[in-house]
Amino acid sequence: MPLYNPLDMKRFSQQVFEKLGACPEDAYIAADALVRANLEGVDSHGISRLAIYARRMKEGRIQAAPHISVEKKGESVLLVDGDHGLGQIVAAHSVKAGMELAKKTGLAAVAVRNSNHFGTASYFCQMACEQGLGIMAFTNSPPGIAPWGGKKAFFGTNPIAFGFPTGTDTPVIIDMSTSVVARGKIILAAKQGQSIPNGWAMNEQGVETQDAQEALRGAVLPLGGAKGYALALAIEILTGVLSGAAFGPHVKNMYDEHDEKSNIGHFFILFDIEKFMDLSHFKLLIDQFLEEVKSVPKAEGVDEILYPGERRSKEYRRRLDTGIALSEEVEKELRLLGEELELYLPATILI
Amino acid sequence: MPLYNPLDMKRFSQQVFEKLGACPEDAYIAADALVRANLEGVDSHGISRLAIYARRMKEGRIQAAPHISVEKKGESVLLVDGDHGLGQIVAAHSVKAGMELAKKTGLAAVAVRNSNHFGTASYFCQMACEQGLGIMAFTNSPPGIAPWGGKKAFFGTNPIAFGFPTGTDTPVIIDMSTSVVARGKIILAAKQGQSIPNGWAMNEQGVETQDAQEALRGAVLPLGGAKGYALALAIEILTGVLSGAAFGPHVKNMYDEHDEKSNIGHFFILFDIEKFMDLSHFKLLIDQFLEEVKSVPKAEGVDEILYPGERRSKEYRRRLDTGIALSEEVEKELRLLGEELELYLPATILI
Repeated sequence: MPLYNPLDMKRFSQQVFEKLGACPEDAYIAADALVRANLEGVDSHGISRLAIYARRMKEGRIQAAPHISVEKKGESVLLVDGDHGLGQIVAAHSVKAGMELAKKTGLAAVAVRNSNHFGTASYFCQMACEQGLGIMAFTNSPPGIAPWGGKKAFFGTNPIAFGFPTGTDTPVIIDMSTSVVARGKIILAAKQGQSIPNGWAMNEQGVETQDAQEALRGAVLPLGGAKGYALALAIEILTGVLSGAAFGPHVKNMYDEHDEKSNIGHFFILFDIEKFMDLSHFKLLIDQFLEEVKSVPKAEGVDEILYPGERRSKEYRRRLDTGIALSEEVEKELRLLGEELELYLPATILI
Repeated sequence: MPLYNPLDMKRFSQQVFEKLGACPEDAYIAADALVRANLEGVDSHGISRLAIYARRMKEGRIQAAPHISVEKKGESVLLVDGDHGLGQIVAAHSVKAGMELAKKTGLAAVAVRNSNHFGTASYFCQMACEQGLGIMAFTNSPPGIAPWGGKKAFFGTNPIAFGFPTGTDTPVIIDMSTSVVARGKIILAAKQGQSIPNGWAMNEQGVETQDAQEALRGAVLPLGGAKGYALALAIEILTGVLSGAAFGPHVKNMYDEHDEKSNIGHFFILFDIEKFMDLSHFKLLIDQFLEEVKSVPKAEGVDEILYPGERRSKEYRRRLDTGIALSEEVEKELRLLGEELELYLPATILI
């Protein structure tokens, strides 16, 4: 696959969002979040999404320049109305407001309604870790997982994410869907005409399938069976019910052709570690903890025990150097998008 | 197995704790939490634990009358030192303080150190739901799960729990270990001389085993592989690192013979739903949500789709009526305990 310079791709993405009406700051955030996903090895949530975001912005299903409102309730609760802006933009504003509040009160919850797909939750976890804050992040998404015992997708693949700063440049970042696998991986497989492994998904009849297209019409299996169902349900309550956003099948899929807004909901909890103990002491403790985790006797064939966030961080540094790859399909989509908006897709890196 | 009247067993348990030095209010909470676990069908966390708690209280490893201190930091953070009291007692005091604070500020985090095994997390979730609050509850526990790629238990089986009130008498209660199965089930199997299913645990050599005794010396497998590892790690950070409690192998197992305190940590987040929306409106929304979940087309052979908390609630009502069963082993332990403390074990229910 051809390789691209990540900075070029970030500038291209930013220009796309600006051409569609986003202010430069918001366009930068959205571009940065997308390219960061590619750099970290999460291509399913990277610039392969740019074309669909752009199409929905042109149609007005995603607002390019949303009027995001933040309402404070009690001392420590923020309610955000995202005005149907792009999820990355709405979530970044929400997390920034939450960080500011948490630094005062020690703790903030931010419940977000009227938003859209926000890409990777890890992006927002990193924002918090850079400020010395801990974070829990959740979002719902269009139906992907069936209730346990059911055969029709109802919940999103609802990720649960955590971020904790460390004393090193590699924070603990956990970002996992509550399905066996993120639906984005199935979307990418379908796009690339590949099949998927057994145990990932069921078709519309409730039978396991290896056909990515069939899987997208069916349901993804929940992580660890009934326990993944319970987690997906809890996250749907936080992000879809408590926030006043849409929940379950009321969340509209941006990939489907209709004229409704997605109304995705997010939920963030931010902790100011300084209120629990000195941040420097916390960093000593968590570094000791992670060191001990990594020193556990290894199973046969294992080279190194990694903590969550390490692989992502290594891949980020590697791809910053080598560039990011685009499939032929994604490249074609972006080239067309560039033509429409009178922007040049950056040249590939010459090796 | 012989059946006992739950109220009789609650009184017996309360008397045990009082004889060992607990005040009546604390003794009642501990007894109520234990018997409630049996009533809800979670026998592994019920009065089968009474004898070991009592032994450790007599030895002073668990304080029967702890001086629990609660320190407020910022507007919304509480730091609790449990003074090595019984987990059920320390956690109940912590959650009560958290509920009071959340009602003012909308949100409270309670980080607890110097505690012990607290039984089921669901008990504290129910406390919050009864007051119209949402809750997330976490605890660590002695090493049970190996890091992904490791072969030695390091993390506890660290449960994650959620509670949300509903408009009915059955709140949403999720209480799940981050292992494939709660270690308590393996303890109970070992106690009853039973084997365990494949896929639950590894032995000390890192190989899967069906021998419950071997499994207790080895490690329980994490829920859904690497994702369960990540969840267990996040919970260990919240409960063991951020709280200032012990973490990983520094958490001492109350079943082992030594003279150290466990220093288990808990972490609670309480939400006052009223700050997000009118509680009555939330109840309408969540009831609609649960109704829609239950109405999803069922897979073949499934009678009813249940939401988390329903089975527990049905079992509670059933066992209130029929009584709770004790294995011969547990009955013998309790009879001996009663003799030591000059208390009569209640008579079985005559059928």
